Amino acid sequence: MGDATVGVAVLGASGSAGGELVRLLAVHPSFDICYLGAQRAAGETLAQVHPHLEALSLGTELLRDGDPAQVAAVAELVFTALPHGASAAVVPALRAAGCTVVDLAGDFRLAAEDYPAWYGFPHPAPDLLPDAVYGLPELLGERLPGAGLVANPGCYPTSVVLGCAPLLAAGLVEPGRICVDGKTGLSGAGREPTPSSMYVATEGSIRPYRLPRHQHTPEMERGLQLASGHTADVLFAPHLVPTVRGVVTTSYLTLAPGITSETLTACLAEAYRDRPFVRVLPAGEMVDAKRTRGSNVIELQAVADPRTGTAVVVGALDNLIKGAAGQAIQNANLALGLPETSGLPSLGVYP
Amino acid sequence: MGDATVGVAVLGASGSAGGELVRLLAVHPSFDICYLGAQRAAGETLAQVHPHLEALSLGTELLRDGDPAQVAAVAELVFTALPHGASAAVVPALRAAGCTVVDLAGDFRLAAEDYPAWYGFPHPAPDLLPDAVYGLPELLGERLPGAGLVANPGCYPTSVVLGCAPLLAAGLVEPGRICVDGKTGLSGAGREPTPSSMYVATEGSIRPYRLPRHQHTPEMERGLQLASGHTADVLFAPHLVPTVRGVVTTSYLTLAPGITSETLTACLAEAYRDRPFVRVLPAGEMVDAKRTRGSNVIELQAVADPRTGTAVVVGALDNLIKGAAGQAIQNANLALGLPETSGLPSLGVYP
Amino acid sequence: MGDATVGVAVLGASGSAGGELVRLLAVHPSFDICYLGAQRAAGETLAQVHPHLEALSLGTELLRDGDPAQVAAVAELVFTALPHGASAAVVPALRAAGCTVVDLAGDFRLAAEDYPAWYGFPHPAPDLLPDAVYGLPELLGERLPGAGLVANPGCYPTSVVLGCAPLLAAGLVEPGRICVDGKTGLSGAGREPTPSSMYVATEGSIRPYRLPRHQHTPEMERGLQLASGHTADVLFAPHLVPTVRGVVTTSYLTLAPGITSETLTACLAEAYRDRPFVRVLPAGEMVDAKRTRGSNVIELQAVADPRTGTAVVVGALDNLIKGAAGQAIQNANLALGLPETSGLPSLGVYP
Amino acid sequence: MGDATVGVAVLGASGSAGGELVRLLAVHPSFDICYLGAQRAAGETLAQVHPHLEALSLGTELLRDGDPAQVAAVAELVFTALPHGASAAVVPALRAAGCTVVDLAGDFRLAAEDYPAWYGFPHPAPDLLPDAVYGLPELLGERLPGAGLVANPGCYPTSVVLGCAPLLAAGLVEPGRICVDGKTGLSGAGREPTPSSMYVATEGSIRPYRLPRHQHTPEMERGLQLASGHTADVLFAPHLVPTVRGVVTTSYLTLAPGITSETLTACLAEAYRDRPFVRVLPAGEMVDAKRTRGSNVIELQAVADPRTGTAVVVGALDNLIKGAAGQAIQNANLALGLPETSGLPSLGVYP
Repeated sequence: MGDATVGVAVLGASGSAGGELVRLLAVHPSFDICYLGAQRAAGETLAQVHPHLEALSLGTELLRDGDPAQVAAVAELVFTALPHGASAAVVPALRAAGCTVVDLAGDFRLAAEDYPAWYGFPHPAPDLLPDAVYGLPELLGERLPGAGLVANPGCYPTSVVLGCAPLLAAGLVEPGRICVDGKTGLSGAGREPTPSSMYVATEGSIRPYRLPRHQHTPEMERGLQLASGHTADVLFAPHLVPTVRGVVTTSYLTLAPGITSETLTACLAEAYRDRPFVRVLPAGEMVDAKRTRGSNVIELQAVADPRTGTAVVVGALDNLIKGAAGQAIQNANLALGLPETSGLPSLGVYP
Repeated sequence: MGDATVGVAVLGASGSAGGELVRLLAVHPSFDICYLGAQRAAGETLAQVHPHLEALSLGTELLRDGDPAQVAAVAELVFTALPHGASAAVVPALRAAGCTVVDLAGDFRLAAEDYPAWYGFPHPAPDLLPDAVYGLPELLGERLPGAGLVANPGCYPTSVVLGCAPLLAAGLVEPGRICVDGKTGLSGAGREPTPSSMYVATEGSIRPYRLPRHQHTPEMERGLQLASGHTADVLFAPHLVPTVRGVVTTSYLTLAPGITSETLTACLAEAYRDRPFVRVLPAGEMVDAKRTRGSNVIELQAVADPRTGTAVVVGALDNLIKGAAGQAIQNANLALGLPETSGLPSLGVYP
Repeated sequence: MGDATVGVAVLGASGSAGGELVRLLAVHPSFDICYLGAQRAAGETLAQVHPHLEALSLGTELLRDGDPAQVAAVAELVFTALPHGASAAVVPALRAAGCTVVDLAGDFRLAAEDYPAWYGFPHPAPDLLPDAVYGLPELLGERLPGAGLVANPGCYPTSVVLGCAPLLAAGLVEPGRICVDGKTGLSGAGREPTPSSMYVATEGSIRPYRLPRHQHTPEMERGLQLASGHTADVLFAPHLVPTVRGVVTTSYLTLAPGITSETLTACLAEAYRDRPFVRVLPAGEMVDAKRTRGSNVIELQAVADPRTGTAVVVGALDNLIKGAAGQAIQNANLALGLPETSGLPSLGVYP
Repeated sequence: MGDATVGVAVLGASGSAGGELVRLLAVHPSFDICYLGAQRAAGETLAQVHPHLEALSLGTELLRDGDPAQVAAVAELVFTALPHGASAAVVPALRAAGCTVVDLAGDFRLAAEDYPAWYGFPHPAPDLLPDAVYGLPELLGERLPGAGLVANPGCYPTSVVLGCAPLLAAGLVEPGRICVDGKTGLSGAGREPTPSSMYVATEGSIRPYRLPRHQHTPEMERGLQLASGHTADVLFAPHLVPTVRGVVTTSYLTLAPGITSETLTACLAEAYRDRPFVRVLPAGEMVDAKRTRGSNVIELQAVADPRTGTAVVVGALDNLIKGAAGQAIQNANLALGLPETSGLPSLGVYP
């Protein structure tokens, strides 16, 4: 890329993922934020919607309404962190104007026929779907260099696919039904105040939600298919627990005969050798979402239980970073030929 | 029982479950605490080990060393809330002296042959095991009246067995493998300060532990067998989440053909009709551990996912009450012919 | 009172204090809830607005619109837990109909001239103010028996006045300026979802609010005057910390010469000897809001620092119980000639 | 400094501040960690004591015993993050060997005569005290360039002195007694498991500690004297609240006549104009510790209450960064002639 920086736009800068994008992009050595878009918050300053970003020089800048033509006039790279459905409405114009787009919504992650059932709307731009690259750099990175449209994965699917796909591909676990138990903090629930997002409703709470129809279900199935070549039927049960950041997925699969925890662990370790953001734990050690908070790292752990014929695969990540904004930047780095780790934190803020 | 109160001893009063027993027994209309035993804390006052109990008149009483003969001389009913293995050492003498015993440890929950593998010691009093009643009042209550030794269930097994056994018995789910994902707060981890029980290690943490060899695994299998007549192979994966009280178990079973969430729910509702401490949620509603905090209530929810052939059963309870001290008192009430609800809270302290 | 129960109405049953009132009244041996009123939530069931109360037989009852004539037709005792200003609109009719009223709003706590400055409205029923008894049972209890209108104190003023008034009255601290630093959890902020009441905004947050114009300021001054006979100028700085229940006030006063922590402590211990809900800690011990959670207890601690001539008085209570619903019931008990402790918890739910 | 990096040692790398130093130094462009010392943990690897640092290449390095001669042989700059008293034992040898030392303990912050009373030991190296620079860069930065020994301030004094000293110096508040109310999370309490540092003891807890004899009291008095030229008598009451990172200090001072919140705010804004890590909030806005988490920023707010003649000054910071490791690096940057902001985060990880 030489020394020149890339002009970057963030659409949906007023949301959780948008705020995290701005926070991370502000210290990226090759990206220069030149457009901040929002819908309802247009006209407010960045610092008004994200007071922790007030220290940025662009903290006093007004959020704009995200008109694609204006965006494309100044930005080479666009992150769309809009509500599901809203991304697909602006991406065609951005692509037509030549922008590289990384979409953090779910709008380009599935096949067209999945949208009515799981997202509740027919896809408005099905022609773009074949060109969208599902951006899981560690397993599906070969299509990223030069990609014009990246579908950035959801937080839960990132954890499940990275943990299970290598084991499926290697035949250490059987295809078929996979039960996935998800746990997450409240930052995944967005910035809209509701009775259930209040502090008083969440302290001390452990509760399932959107069971059994969470929209990440078909994404897990598709991601596993793309990354392993095998078909899986996913039952996904997400739960809220009292924390802000952090996703842990615990996947229950059928273990192939004769396989041990050490075999599973070795397979994952080999799959992610030299990958800067994946930490495979030695057999017997336990992942912890807290260690990943503030970093782009995912921790993975695999356990065999021959007694019941089960493989348990556990993944932990920061849902706003490796599960959203961090992985989006990782994808953008690779799409534009920059170093994969550029601008991304590899150490969590702990404790 | 007439108007006379029953003399009660709590052995292990310095622990988490012991403290909760004292707190609840202090307002029980038919029980009179007359002996508080402890091992390491013997010689300290109750208020020194449990400052929140300082208001009790017995707050200034010294904890005693739990000698069975002294205990039996004053107490008709004994709760043993000792570490696993320590209960079995004192229960024979208490039983021989005629005391009714409710054991909160795991020492009388399994068959003798299970102890070496899951608890790490051969059972010291196997002769007593056949007489021990597994104290799950809602499903196995017929053996409780007059019982001399009650094995009080563990917190996780209480949630799993109450949720799954009626469905197994009715054939709505298949026997065979059941995967159980557990989530709990820190109060289940005891009162010993360790690096992992510190606040700084737990805030923001979501992490599995003791996977896949938690000692509640065989108890779930045995409880399901006792209560449903069917054999299940349980894979159990417990997780810690940042709260103090609360257990949620999410059980993944194979759904029988043609079964819906409504069928599952109706089966549970029928099984627990008029049971004061079981709340079966209407299909589509979600359990919440927070609502059970401070009460002896368990919330249950069942969901069918025909797409993947899965039944998901979720239970939520306060691990120190319905999962320990509250259920122990419920068992004692029934063993002694008192009203089942006597002295037990049915409303949580919320929010 | 004989064996007959008293018919009770709760107006504002959909709010935080209202829900806590219903939870506590449900187990009160002499009170019988016969009317649940609400404003915006009228027409919903109790369980819809307070799911943790679903187990109550009145859980399925519809909340009514709180018409005073209907209320007075069925209830002898009325708790008004309405927004500030709304209580004063209904209390005159309730009083005229002969009801005993305990008001949990701020509407009868101050002198008429204070309302415009601190609550933003002229008092709509100033004629009732002279008859309103400020309900701090431990210090101002002599006017409670037979009282027709009790102004139930605020959570912060309860803690400050109980801690400081005896020391002022005894001359151990000087009148004049008192700085009060308050810390509270989120349950004091009501049930309305706002950006700042969300979990994501509160986890990890420590922040002042409404500084320096919190409406509890003049109430502290008036309460101290009533209970000690001395005038104090109160500067009050409240802070939010990440918990649900709990108020701690730390008051900084000028120490009289020669006074020690032991003298201060002895004065408080004497003032509250035999009072069931006040726990004065020995000199050197520290209060903890956690120990009071779920109980009607206040913990008090007094510290002298002769080096700087300062007395520090710290109080801790559960803001929904001793700071609201519990103290209201305590006041009602005394107003109606019932035992002071009737229906009130004296042990916290700990940990 | 040219392009060469500076060899750096961290003594006490196994502690909370030590771990944070390593985390921050790992991304510092001019520092190269070449020695990690510890006392009890010597022989363990960095990743064993700080698993979140496992991703660092030095994660597998063994912690060494901190012998000063060995340290001085490889390191030009030494951070001593040892227990109070242990730093003073090693600093003389390090200084004699020519190392620049930044001490994070309290060993060089006070005058020699203060140590017996407040730290419980006579100072072992009083000759070094006159050369120690109290490292508060924004107010006392002129002595930092070229300094050989920097006493890095405590977390609470940093917040109090930065907030109050400019107002004292300008005569907007009166000298004399200042009452300081502190609130902090658990990370300031170190890494030793104790009953009171457990999760179960801290969730829901608000409690004072070490009142009125916290060792930061004389440091606040000395810091205010150094930075304002005025004498203050500080009463300091620290409190624990349920969070990990974060300090808020609320200081109560006597307001000079005629002064408004706007005057106070303007004075602070002027004092910290162009200072990269101090954010003075506009009058009426409230600080929040959460916004500073993960950053080297302090937020300050000043409020006048003419009614009671009080000035309230509130400061909020991350106790492990601006209150410890971050400020230590800021001091080292200035001592060695590097840019003040080098390697330091100015944006918090929010939410």
